Amino acid sequence: MRRTYLVDAQAALAANRHPYYGHGKLEVLPKLNVATLDDIATLYTPGVAYSVQEIIDRPEALHELSTKDNMIAVVTDGTAVLGLGRAGPRAAVPVMEGKAAMFKLLAGIDAVPLCLAVEKSLDLVDILAALEPSFGGYNIEDVGAPGCFEVMRALETRLPIPAIHDDQYGTATVIVATLINAWKVTGREPRDQRVVINGAGAAGAATFDLLRGMGIGDIIVNDRNGILCAGQVQAPAHHVSIAAASNAERRKGGIAEAVRGADVFIGVSVAGQLSGDMVRTMRSRPIVLALANPVPEIMPEEALAAGAAIIATGRFDYPNQCNNVLAFPALMRAALDTGAKRLDRDVYLTCARAIAAEIPDAALGPSSILPSPLSPSLYPNAAEATARAIVNRGLARRDPGPASVADNTRRLRRLVAERQSVIARLGNGAGS
Amino acid sequence: MRRTYLVDAQAALAANRHPYYGHGKLEVLPKLNVATLDDIATLYTPGVAYSVQEIIDRPEALHELSTKDNMIAVVTDGTAVLGLGRAGPRAAVPVMEGKAAMFKLLAGIDAVPLCLAVEKSLDLVDILAALEPSFGGYNIEDVGAPGCFEVMRALETRLPIPAIHDDQYGTATVIVATLINAWKVTGREPRDQRVVINGAGAAGAATFDLLRGMGIGDIIVNDRNGILCAGQVQAPAHHVSIAAASNAERRKGGIAEAVRGADVFIGVSVAGQLSGDMVRTMRSRPIVLALANPVPEIMPEEALAAGAAIIATGRFDYPNQCNNVLAFPALMRAALDTGAKRLDRDVYLTCARAIAAEIPDAALGPSSILPSPLSPSLYPNAAEATARAIVNRGLARRDPGPASVADNTRRLRRLVAERQSVIARLGNGAGS
Repeated sequence: MRRTYLVDAQAALAANRHPYYGHGKLEVLPKLNVATLDDIATLYTPGVAYSVQEIIDRPEALHELSTKDNMIAVVTDGTAVLGLGRAGPRAAVPVMEGKAAMFKLLAGIDAVPLCLAVEKSLDLVDILAALEPSFGGYNIEDVGAPGCFEVMRALETRLPIPAIHDDQYGTATVIVATLINAWKVTGREPRDQRVVINGAGAAGAATFDLLRGMGIGDIIVNDRNGILCAGQVQAPAHHVSIAAASNAERRKGGIAEAVRGADVFIGVSVAGQLSGDMVRTMRSRPIVLALANPVPEIMPEEALAAGAAIIATGRFDYPNQCNNVLAFPALMRAALDTGAKRLDRDVYLTCARAIAAEIPDAALGPSSILPSPLSPSLYPNAAEATARAIVNRGLARRDPGPASVADNTRRLRRLVAERQSVIARLGNGAGS
Repeated sequence: MRRTYLVDAQAALAANRHPYYGHGKLEVLPKLNVATLDDIATLYTPGVAYSVQEIIDRPEALHELSTKDNMIAVVTDGTAVLGLGRAGPRAAVPVMEGKAAMFKLLAGIDAVPLCLAVEKSLDLVDILAALEPSFGGYNIEDVGAPGCFEVMRALETRLPIPAIHDDQYGTATVIVATLINAWKVTGREPRDQRVVINGAGAAGAATFDLLRGMGIGDIIVNDRNGILCAGQVQAPAHHVSIAAASNAERRKGGIAEAVRGADVFIGVSVAGQLSGDMVRTMRSRPIVLALANPVPEIMPEEALAAGAAIIATGRFDYPNQCNNVLAFPALMRAALDTGAKRLDRDVYLTCARAIAAEIPDAALGPSSILPSPLSPSLYPNAAEATARAIVNRGLARRDPGPASVADNTRRLRRLVAERQSVIARLGNGAGS
């Protein structure tokens, strides 16, 4: 069942090496052709002084005379890089460059990676507040729990622009989209489901929040110290509040006890946590989301052999890629186009439903529950639905009007794809 | 004599407005064509995990697997924007975008604007130290004196990457290049010159430093409180040290007294400071550099009418554009290609001589003392000479080998120009 995507180590490393044109995945290009001294005088000096004066006279002109409203930073402190933990901001650079590339390709958003060496995650807040004049939003990435919760609360208070922690609500949004279709395919009723979330970090906590928002009552959350159980857990704070609202039967123990009798396993933890034997103790034909990156909690072959009806991972070399790339471009596009300062649970759930709705009922199947990131309609539709939810929830600073976010997303994707393809044909200057 | 470059307000503002493709001057594009799920798997997940692991195992791999070594930030706190003073980081955004565009076009350097809202300039230091994993260098811009001196000292101590304050040594380098050729054209001997520097801020202090490094002994520096004179000036510290090493005859008064009998006037101050009557009190056929931006200390027409042999401004709509754009792309290209942590006075003077040498003696004339930023040889030659000086001064972490910085600059410029011209032909999606 594994697809034959080329991801051997050498090919993956080679994709980052460009000895003739600067290494790495990104470049920063001027939008305008600058070929004459006229162009320089207009774009640079003395021409630029008119823009400066205009912004001094009319501060809102910044939004129409700079990249700000379409420029975001992909920000990390390297405390939770992929499944590798505290790998540090340097090791995180290739990941953030990859995310930035996806933002541009999939939603036309200009994104620069900012990988910060800070003592504690909370130090990010002052820095991001200071950098705000340059950016329309922040995509926070790979910042570990529990530090990330405090960071996100502080950013929401301090910033006039949106900050979205992808590992919280980006991941949780795609998990909900996956479950909506997995439940459809297996003929289950969401409110009857027993769901196990393995991993009570950033993604686990946000997934718990969204599932509660959908009315799912029977949830067990397991972390490295065992099942979260009210009265047993004293810290950190987010574990205490999850414990208070989950595990009604006060089950104790570890992952093996947690998954017994469950319909759904959601792994947002580390490689190899779930065995085939554990899957066999779940309810008949269970749903397994094994999302640790790059090596999942259980490999798809093993989960299916143990009776799983549906297996999804975060990887693009297996079917059912439950990866936050399906959500983050649309969430940010909608936030930018509506001028939202923040998104809420209803907005994320709306985005999840829009992602799920990309697969028509007739096309749904055990290996076909999620759209491809290359789908031409996914991001326009998901961004449009998200923007409508932002407006309806009273979180928009401007209403871009019906269909306009979808139109904008489509147009930007087409323009980026055109640029990409002509640039690819130019080559990288090797041999010159 | 004024050239007819199109810099009316509406055209200059319109160059920043792109309603169909995001406003502003810059975009961030992936270098690779991403057209299939294979490409996403290679560039993003799971492929990116190989790069992360490689950097964890071998930290120096960051330099070959990311944009870091060709990616800089153009940084300001908005305390000295153009000639407009403390305009703030928001009004500075269009200027930093323009600089970033010039870095890419002229030296193939990827540059992102970071405009920071900080309480005091020194707050930049911790932030730039934290952001260092993402960048190969910092171009500091429009940070006012005296804060900038303390910032630059702290950055030199803290950072493993170069930080160049363009308003100090970028400007000073181009001023020296201008004077070298102006002295040639007017048949003057540098060591006999009396030079007046009007403005003892960032640019004035660095210009004083470089001129002293050339052996120019007779310098008078005038600031808004009058001529700097030893014993008369108590603060700030850089004024005290300039006063101690200048104005040997202890002249007192203001600009009118300063310029009397001088060969050279260097204005790094604000608009309209120098009158034609003052020029008439200078030595015969004086050299006037009126570099306030966008409106110079004296307009060229008036300076020439008052007897100036040569007038240079910072603008691209007059001849003799003495603008730091002639230096900063070459300085940073050389710093990046040699892995230099810092540049010194000799390095800047070498760059200045290389810029001046771009005009062959036969082509020198009163309206032709500086090369065009569109010259194909300027940046390759200046970057190469600067890199050699960095190596010779023991400031290089790697010797890129003879001619290789020039070759790299030429290749990158050609590749950027190719991308620019095909992108310009694609249009901006208007009407779609």
